[in-house]
Amino acid sequence: MPESIEMSMPEKRKPYEPGVDEIVAGILEGNRRMLSRAITLVESTKPEHESKAHEVLDRCLAVKKETIRIGITGSPGAGKSTFIESLGKEIIAEGLRLAVLAVDPSSSRSGGSILGDKARMETLAAHPAAFIRPTASSGHLGGTSPKTHEAIVLCEAAGFDVVIVETVGVGQSEITVDSMVDFILLLMLPGSGDELQGIKRGIMEIADAIAVTKSDGTQEPLALVSKADSEAALRMLPPKHRFHERRVFLTSSVTGKGIGDVWKEIRDTVASMRRQNILQARRKEQLKKLLYSSLESMLRTRFFSNRAVHAMLPDIEQKVLSDSLSPFSGAKALLEAFQNRT
Amino acid sequence: MPESIEMSMPEKRKPYEPGVDEIVAGILEGNRRMLSRAITLVESTKPEHESKAHEVLDRCLAVKKETIRIGITGSPGAGKSTFIESLGKEIIAEGLRLAVLAVDPSSSRSGGSILGDKARMETLAAHPAAFIRPTASSGHLGGTSPKTHEAIVLCEAAGFDVVIVETVGVGQSEITVDSMVDFILLLMLPGSGDELQGIKRGIMEIADAIAVTKSDGTQEPLALVSKADSEAALRMLPPKHRFHERRVFLTSSVTGKGIGDVWKEIRDTVASMRRQNILQARRKEQLKKLLYSSLESMLRTRFFSNRAVHAMLPDIEQKVLSDSLSPFSGAKALLEAFQNRT
Repeated sequence: MPESIEMSMPEKRKPYEPGVDEIVAGILEGNRRMLSRAITLVESTKPEHESKAHEVLDRCLAVKKETIRIGITGSPGAGKSTFIESLGKEIIAEGLRLAVLAVDPSSSRSGGSILGDKARMETLAAHPAAFIRPTASSGHLGGTSPKTHEAIVLCEAAGFDVVIVETVGVGQSEITVDSMVDFILLLMLPGSGDELQGIKRGIMEIADAIAVTKSDGTQEPLALVSKADSEAALRMLPPKHRFHERRVFLTSSVTGKGIGDVWKEIRDTVASMRRQNILQARRKEQLKKLLYSSLESMLRTRFFSNRAVHAMLPDIEQKVLSDSLSPFSGAKALLEAFQNRT
Repeated sequence: MPESIEMSMPEKRKPYEPGVDEIVAGILEGNRRMLSRAITLVESTKPEHESKAHEVLDRCLAVKKETIRIGITGSPGAGKSTFIESLGKEIIAEGLRLAVLAVDPSSSRSGGSILGDKARMETLAAHPAAFIRPTASSGHLGGTSPKTHEAIVLCEAAGFDVVIVETVGVGQSEITVDSMVDFILLLMLPGSGDELQGIKRGIMEIADAIAVTKSDGTQEPLALVSKADSEAALRMLPPKHRFHERRVFLTSSVTGKGIGDVWKEIRDTVASMRRQNILQARRKEQLKKLLYSSLESMLRTRFFSNRAVHAMLPDIEQKVLSDSLSPFSGAKALLEAFQNRT
């Protein structure tokens, strides 16, 4: 009986789903569509995508290459996307390939309209040596997705020499991004009072360099003050790395001032970290953090897709809502169900 | 053999540990030492404290009382502790008992020395109707501990009519605190540009009212500008509750200006929410969130205290660090060990 019903149903065509081999081969060839697809797969929260995503990631992690990972952060309005566009052109001009994992402000609740963003990084996006992946910032504070580290791994396997991760300066996201990049650049709008806010929120402590943006025209005197203030603030903070002195740069995406200097600073610092084996040690630490963050996310996925948990959850939720069960007793009952059947 | 060794060991005196009945009885009598002890128990991350903490919480949750839960937030420097001290005196003057779950800035990495905080809320702390519990802000962004909701439950069972939760304005902590209080008050320092920062970081959206602080002496003209700016900003944002219009108050902890008005606004709004059954619905939603946050924290505790996981973890970590195992494969192996033996 069920069979005949099945046979009378119109045939559904599933969209073509490439397998692990095809995805990995595509990534290694530098196929952007396949890279995008793999990032989407890795970001998926569906339990059935998990093991496929991990097979792809395992094989991409095995590809070894010397790359540079840059985190760029700053308050909304500090000119992040314009700055990244200018810096990106500088990087590409050296013959390097660049991937940008960018925050998409239009997807956050109120950010889009207030910031008035139009198409971002247009010139860079059109360049064959660049790959730009916008990440919806809604839901994840500051726009780093919990899978940003994984996306970096995929971009590097696809042959990108430099990966830029953009975040919004709200504290937690910077600390997260510090666990996945080699160098953090903090952008500062002249006269915005960002220096003190940056210190208080712990962002300045994790910066490897600061770029004061929009240092052109009538803004120049303000920019000079911001530079002096930032330098004073940096002197108050403990050093991030013993071997590296944090510098403050005056930059302008209009005149191009300072952009080359910032790139040189990043490139030279990362090269020096590599020579001293500091970069390698840091990346190992980061892999360890990735082990723990993967563990937590997989554990959560397994728990909520567990059959017994799934069956009990609506009833327990109802009892908690009607005050006949405490949240703690409810949680305990669900955990016991999870651990009794594997 | 092992027995004789045990017998020859000098007897260790364990510090006296009160049982669940004794703790609960102490809390219900309003014994502060027992309340403090219970909060410490609940905040403990040791697996052996979990079930005792939950028994205490279950029994405290069963105590029903009409209380007011207030979240107070603002940038560092907005004058939170001085404001809370003034507001607290106003609340106590009405014969109500007040508990404050306060951020302790001296425990965060750089906050303490820069902010120059001395003893905070001294007068309030000395008052018999007040209970102040400082929470170390290090590790948890903005100072709400993952157990703040549980601490509120304990304070209410101990007979406190009003609970104030203080957070530092960094975004994530406000969104967390919104899931556990009835009313959020945003403090704003005159002329600090906090209005725009507040909008951008989503803090203003969750505020039920705004108090401009330090509106006295030479600061008054600036405070008026901040009030107008905040009112303009609020008009741009979607309403938080349909029934409630968000107001901006000028306040001074020096002259006492506006403090009574703020308290009246909070008390009347919460009373009106209660009459319309909105408060009850909101608190039920919050209990549901507490179910999920308890689940996640208990799941994590059980995982990392699992014998098989504990035994395998060092080896897997080592393999990930030496690049012979990917973090994803390592996580998978640990999860399988966890699920095979319960």
